Amino acid sequence: MTQLQTILEPILDDLSFVDEKLKDFSQSSDLPSLDKLLKHVFASKGKRARPALTILASGFHPHDKSNVITMAAAVEMLHVATLIHDDTVDEADTRRGRITISSGWGDRIAVLVGDYVFAASATFVCDTGDIQVIRRFSETIMELSRGELQEISLSGNVDGNISEYLQRIYFKTGSLFATSGESGARLSGADIGIVRILTDYSRKIGTAFQIIDDILDFEADEISLGKPVGSDLLNGIVTLPTIFAMEDNNIQNLVRRYFEEGKHETILEELVNLIRESNAINRAQEYAENLSREARESLTRLPANRSRESLEELTHFIVRRIS
Amino acid sequence: MTQLQTILEPILDDLSFVDEKLKDFSQSSDLPSLDKLLKHVFASKGKRARPALTILASGFHPHDKSNVITMAAAVEMLHVATLIHDDTVDEADTRRGRITISSGWGDRIAVLVGDYVFAASATFVCDTGDIQVIRRFSETIMELSRGELQEISLSGNVDGNISEYLQRIYFKTGSLFATSGESGARLSGADIGIVRILTDYSRKIGTAFQIIDDILDFEADEISLGKPVGSDLLNGIVTLPTIFAMEDNNIQNLVRRYFEEGKHETILEELVNLIRESNAINRAQEYAENLSREARESLTRLPANRSRESLEELTHFIVRRIS
Repeated sequence: MTQLQTILEPILDDLSFVDEKLKDFSQSSDLPSLDKLLKHVFASKGKRARPALTILASGFHPHDKSNVITMAAAVEMLHVATLIHDDTVDEADTRRGRITISSGWGDRIAVLVGDYVFAASATFVCDTGDIQVIRRFSETIMELSRGELQEISLSGNVDGNISEYLQRIYFKTGSLFATSGESGARLSGADIGIVRILTDYSRKIGTAFQIIDDILDFEADEISLGKPVGSDLLNGIVTLPTIFAMEDNNIQNLVRRYFEEGKHETILEELVNLIRESNAINRAQEYAENLSREARESLTRLPANRSRESLEELTHFIVRRIS
Repeated sequence: MTQLQTILEPILDDLSFVDEKLKDFSQSSDLPSLDKLLKHVFASKGKRARPALTILASGFHPHDKSNVITMAAAVEMLHVATLIHDDTVDEADTRRGRITISSGWGDRIAVLVGDYVFAASATFVCDTGDIQVIRRFSETIMELSRGELQEISLSGNVDGNISEYLQRIYFKTGSLFATSGESGARLSGADIGIVRILTDYSRKIGTAFQIIDDILDFEADEISLGKPVGSDLLNGIVTLPTIFAMEDNNIQNLVRRYFEEGKHETILEELVNLIRESNAINRAQEYAENLSREARESLTRLPANRSRESLEELTHFIVRRIS
């Protein structure tokens, strides 16, 4: 956490403007019962990785800050909207240490509040006036829901390969990271070459971020994870560590049995242990670190400044985080 | 139905282009399981009131049709997305004679498919390149979910008055009607004066449309309605007929008792009969007809042409429909 503070140090003022915007938004609906829900949702701050990325990516061209701040608020709102719907879909009880909307107020309210925040994020993006950014943002919402649907449709399927996995996590996570960086760079008025470098960088660290998430699902303990260890397998989802581990036929057969025979808890425990003891976790970690290194190297084509330093440090932080 | 055919006669070609666009969309996700769901959702055509309004409202200025067709497809997609989420929220089994996504494939899938169609509708609007239209469209999505949330938060509340009711149905229905007409007019390149007349017209017929819906909830039979008679009261929702009927203290007390004592079926039957026998239905019908007449009169400020004739006929159709 301290390390993240250092990375965000140069943009703390900008991030506080983003917080201010989110706070204003959560008391602006003119419907007291809705404001209460919005306040609940925006009260606990997450890692703020996406708004930070938007702001840092805007640091390579002098510009009026207001559009970038608005955009940074929008990407956080979009992220929060997806969390509201994901928690509804997954029947999660808590998020960021607080009760979820669906568990506290029911699925009906959660679906509609999610819709409201989705739409509000899009109106924020409209305020930037940049039609390319607006269009990319809408496409990102499509990709996010498509990624979740793909995950559900492949649930219990053990035939997944790395390229299918990478596509799935691009939709689920990489897309919004890429859009965060791309829109920050674009709205700053940077040259298209710089926009492309930052889009590519952001997509790569988004992908690495998700791979680490998928590793933590095996490695972390239940308390720091906030969900049971092995919850992806429990939901029938095959992630990179499992894909690597299944190169061993015994593990592959056990995963198959686990899905086919009604997901017995003892098999899950055995599987989690086998995967932890195999070299699959290390290989997945290496995969993420390669992406992180590629992202870091691409930054050398940008002018050296404080933003670039933070983006460099971010590539380290992403693959070292433990929660 | 035949009357509606006559109204739509001049724009049947354009509507078939809209259908074509929706069909293309429903086989474009690159995810076969999602395409299947999209085909299911778009296979049955509804009344197509909103796309028809967009196209008719574009008929007062010569223009390239493609943006208007795209916009007409977008308003129908937005409508369909809200239906998918509404049916999830309301646990409805069927819609337009077909099984709903939530009842056939579960709430998780329905939430995500709804999100996907919402976002896709927004990318369609981006294709028009008109930032004012895009922004208005996002605001409309906010208003739609806000309207549903307001309805839920007021459920079981008998203190509703006409102005609160009108605000609620503006969000729920009037807003998207207004946006349909406004965007058609705006994208045709018509003068702002004409855009305003058509926006106002569309908002009024949208409101009248919803009032008739609320009357049909008392008047129609269960088969043509596709849901039980009195379902609004059953859901704790007080609509215009009930607001008028509650001017009678006996009816007001009975509504109060019905909500407070756990919604007994016998009380609902009695209430529906009392409201049917009162003059409340007639007064609500008159209210809708006044709006419809105001909308019709505003059209006299537009040049006389085929589009205007259809819009005139539409004001009659809206208040005379029986399903």
